[in-house]
Amino acid sequence: MKILGIDPGFAIVGFGLVRAEGGRPAAVCCGAINTPAGLPLPARLVQIADDLESLLARFQPDALAVEELFFNTNVTTGIGVAQARGVILMTAQRQGVPIFEYTPSQVKQAVVGYGKAEKRQVMEMTRRLLNLKELPKPDDAADALAVALCHARSATSLLNVERKLDSSRYDTR
Amino acid sequence: MKILGIDPGFAIVGFGLVRAEGGRPAAVCCGAINTPAGLPLPARLVQIADDLESLLARFQPDALAVEELFFNTNVTTGIGVAQARGVILMTAQRQGVPIFEYTPSQVKQAVVGYGKAEKRQVMEMTRRLLNLKELPKPDDAADALAVALCHARSATSLLNVERKLDSSRYDTR
Repeated sequence: MKILGIDPGFAIVGFGLVRAEGGRPAAVCCGAINTPAGLPLPARLVQIADDLESLLARFQPDALAVEELFFNTNVTTGIGVAQARGVILMTAQRQGVPIFEYTPSQVKQAVVGYGKAEKRQVMEMTRRLLNLKELPKPDDAADALAVALCHARSATSLLNVERKLDSSRYDTR
Repeated sequence: MKILGIDPGFAIVGFGLVRAEGGRPAAVCCGAINTPAGLPLPARLVQIADDLESLLARFQPDALAVEELFFNTNVTTGIGVAQARGVILMTAQRQGVPIFEYTPSQVKQAVVGYGKAEKRQVMEMTRRLLNLKELPKPDDAADALAVALCHARSATSLLNVERKLDSSRYDTR
């Protein structure tokens, strides 16, 4: 299973591709879509849609994983991020890629084992779990790998549960 | 000039088409894109993009006018609206339709002549200025006509200024 993790933004969209097929999940690649600061927002959103379409065509992921959005301090930035996130969800849905959303604490729980972990802990654990020598750059790419990893772990546990249910069903026959 | 006004949302997207070619602007039509409440957000966003593409293809507007987004009480609803707004901006930009954004107070100023007008005043003045017998339904369609009207008036005043500048240029020759 190939999982494309996405960290939404209108200036930088982080992405990270994780392969999870039994055993330890592995990072395939990661990076970021950067949109020029001088460009008006609608044009930046088109670039995000175009570039994401290219990534989806190239990687053919089985799932797209993205964090749910919460607004904390900067609501104005938050509006821009939400607008970009809408474009990302729409683009993936149009290409028929199943979308999975996780809260920040679900990502922390899945990666660090503690829902209130610090951002640095999440990044360091992402690096270790994916067996990477260095922390991926930019931070947005590392965040995208973290949410992909979160889905890898959730999806794997779900598969395990389903497998258990299946075998118990056979057991009772 | 045909102006498509849009009132963004993820459940209801209001639209209103206004024709402004010298003299009084006229409403051509208005309505709303409705997305089913039970549908997951990504699928609702795809429906908004698909339906807006159909509207743009059918009406061939020269401009799309939309209100800037401000968050007041309900931030959670606001995130959904912002995500839908991103899809709307991206879709119009992709189709090459010039996008014009106005603050709520600019719309009120243009329609009522008072930047702090009540919502009901804006709707009633929109009805009168567009010479409509009844207030368009739903409210989202009326709001969309208001922002289209705002652009009609702004665009017309700009044309007037340009015309004045042109004639003064000729005068000084």
